[in-house]
Amino acid sequence: MTSPVLLDRADLHVSLADPALLSMNFLNEVAGRYPEAISFAPGRPTEETFDVADLHRYLDAYARHLAEDKGYDEVRVRRELFQYGRTKGIVHELIARQLELDEGITVDPEAIVVTVGAQEALWLVLRALKAAENDVVLAVTPAYVGLTGAARLLDLPVRSVPEGPHGLRPEDLIDRIRAVRAAGERPRALYLVPDFSNPSGHSLDLATRHRLLEIAAEEDILLLEDNPYGYFRAADGGRLPTLKALDTGQRVVHVGSLAKTCFPGARVGFAVADQQVAGPGGGLLADELSRAKSMVTVNTSPVSQALVGGMLLEHGGSLLRANERPIAVYRRNLDCLLKGLQRRFSALPGVSWNTPSGGFFVVVTVPFPVTDALLEDAAVRHGVLFTPMRHFGDDARSARQLRLSCSYLTTDQIESGLDRLSDLIAEHLRAAPDA
Amino acid sequence: MTSPVLLDRADLHVSLADPALLSMNFLNEVAGRYPEAISFAPGRPTEETFDVADLHRYLDAYARHLAEDKGYDEVRVRRELFQYGRTKGIVHELIARQLELDEGITVDPEAIVVTVGAQEALWLVLRALKAAENDVVLAVTPAYVGLTGAARLLDLPVRSVPEGPHGLRPEDLIDRIRAVRAAGERPRALYLVPDFSNPSGHSLDLATRHRLLEIAAEEDILLLEDNPYGYFRAADGGRLPTLKALDTGQRVVHVGSLAKTCFPGARVGFAVADQQVAGPGGGLLADELSRAKSMVTVNTSPVSQALVGGMLLEHGGSLLRANERPIAVYRRNLDCLLKGLQRRFSALPGVSWNTPSGGFFVVVTVPFPVTDALLEDAAVRHGVLFTPMRHFGDDARSARQLRLSCSYLTTDQIESGLDRLSDLIAEHLRAAPDA
Repeated sequence: MTSPVLLDRADLHVSLADPALLSMNFLNEVAGRYPEAISFAPGRPTEETFDVADLHRYLDAYARHLAEDKGYDEVRVRRELFQYGRTKGIVHELIARQLELDEGITVDPEAIVVTVGAQEALWLVLRALKAAENDVVLAVTPAYVGLTGAARLLDLPVRSVPEGPHGLRPEDLIDRIRAVRAAGERPRALYLVPDFSNPSGHSLDLATRHRLLEIAAEEDILLLEDNPYGYFRAADGGRLPTLKALDTGQRVVHVGSLAKTCFPGARVGFAVADQQVAGPGGGLLADELSRAKSMVTVNTSPVSQALVGGMLLEHGGSLLRANERPIAVYRRNLDCLLKGLQRRFSALPGVSWNTPSGGFFVVVTVPFPVTDALLEDAAVRHGVLFTPMRHFGDDARSARQLRLSCSYLTTDQIESGLDRLSDLIAEHLRAAPDA
Repeated sequence: MTSPVLLDRADLHVSLADPALLSMNFLNEVAGRYPEAISFAPGRPTEETFDVADLHRYLDAYARHLAEDKGYDEVRVRRELFQYGRTKGIVHELIARQLELDEGITVDPEAIVVTVGAQEALWLVLRALKAAENDVVLAVTPAYVGLTGAARLLDLPVRSVPEGPHGLRPEDLIDRIRAVRAAGERPRALYLVPDFSNPSGHSLDLATRHRLLEIAAEEDILLLEDNPYGYFRAADGGRLPTLKALDTGQRVVHVGSLAKTCFPGARVGFAVADQQVAGPGGGLLADELSRAKSMVTVNTSPVSQALVGGMLLEHGGSLLRANERPIAVYRRNLDCLLKGLQRRFSALPGVSWNTPSGGFFVVVTVPFPVTDALLEDAAVRHGVLFTPMRHFGDDARSARQLRLSCSYLTTDQIESGLDRLSDLIAEHLRAAPDA
């Protein structure tokens, strides 16, 4: 009998105790402790359209596709689903077709890497781009914690480009790039969510999109475009092209999530990385990402890929079409949330919120600090959960903001949740009227 | 129109052009170019027992388990399969029970992290353990390329502990630890496959297992035990306990793969990491791995987990029972391969091979270099593929060895493949009889 090992935290990688990684944990843990609370916290898709029978049907649809469209015999179909598979994935052609249909993005399927969710895609891109000690990534902030966390695992510094009240300003990006360079660092890419950003809800207008592409070329950086919410516009029409759709110089690495447009449980996302790599063994950046992927997850589960593939096939290859019902749910919910905020808070001094034209998130500003203690209090005494914006940015503004997600609630839950939030806010305004 | 970006290889992470990562690519690429060749190369499980109908049945079995054993209502079952889930996984209790039943390992399910294959588990452990610049991992070599590759992605040096002709010698480990320390490096763990190792086929005897646990405690390192092949013993009885089953001091992080015992397409593996972590926020090492996982893959697909969970449930929770047919196939194949080698090569000077008592792999030594060019030649002119051992180790012995995997072939294919290999070897012996 030997005495049991006791590992010291200092002997584990520093990222594991980083606020970015602890945040996610803390937020999940709070949500787990108060399962009865109405939660405006998670960016989950609606559950109203899920049905276990779908899984069986999608699987069969994909197996039929392999047999009928690809001409695979039974042994090959079985092998495709059960065995190890192509590192870059097996639904790359379906994804390329979907991007063409829904986004007007024309891309060689070979430039697509199918990943274990968009998170793996982000991690792989950051891994590839961190080559030198002084490499950094820029991120529009407040930023999705998954970007920050992935960078932490790689000891890759994240330099923030703070959003203005209406989102990213191109001149702020230029200033930041120059300041970063002046400090001896090399900015490799700018991470951003151009449509209905998480957490801020902001979208970029068309002129800003074009300007960002120019800046990327002038300053020799890449744009790391994350697009989980682009299909969830609150009103018909007027969807703006993604950066990738406008990208004539391969400045954009486009990361897609199928968590919101198919379902999170598949854990399927992808990167479009059509950049050429010079030098020996050069090819597409996608092939570099693939090599890294082979040493992290080997390949994305072909059964998971078959499920999203089957879902795509059922809807003529289009995610917009596959998401007609969810899009209607999100419109209904965002409308309900924004009207509910208006009704309850428009007369309250110091309380304001933005009005995104789509997506899952609205940010509310209050005249008192939104701390983790406040969140606990909201859960215990009011039965309502949200996300303190300080988990996404450490600026003074974020410290008094909370993010509300309305994507997976019913309208009744949204109304009750807002009533509870209203009680909480009223209480704090009484306690510190001029805070 | 801007001119397209051209990335320079030197501006991408150095691991992406590392031999360990290029090896895997090269080997897959050769296999892809010669689909008609008989391939002794991949460590794939047998396909004889796969059936697409199984996937539907496993999924239903798991959904039934959630409803009947866990008491989940329909909404909760749907949520469990479709939504984001617990980072450490949802089949941890089934895995804990399986380890108890099949291995005599008693472990708190909370100490298990379900991962996207064993590869992600290896990566996470290495990520957690690389805390300081001088940290290194030790590996019994020739080593599985997935370990080396995962380490490369982390800039973590791998220091090899070469196997003797009969496998790892404990005194070599002690020598190596001391040499590494003398060079100013800190060894964190020793990676090893105690049963039917990939690529060498070696197994550790019981005395060596006990001795390694003592050394780990004395030298304050962890043992990173990878166990993909342990159930595939060629003769009944006599299975030795895993290191984890003997581990009274939490010196062993046990990594399990369900790729061989369930199926690779699920991409489900796990780590048992029951080590305590001291310091603020301390808990189990599993929770540290979980935090890292949340920033790489978020969680392992719950549908994939449901498939392996359903398979376990169908066999009373035991992988040994679930694998009765595959085990019989592997026994038949290994027997066929070893007898075939004996019949063809026992009279050839300088040709020898080991005789593992289970697993997927046999290593053949020949009196000429086994290069990638030889592999190409074997594919083109003889229609047979294998893996040059130089992909797993850079020593002089490996340079003249090839690995034969017999796991997913039929006995007819094994016989024909050996005939082809025999032609190749005879040709080279004639060309360089005393090489």
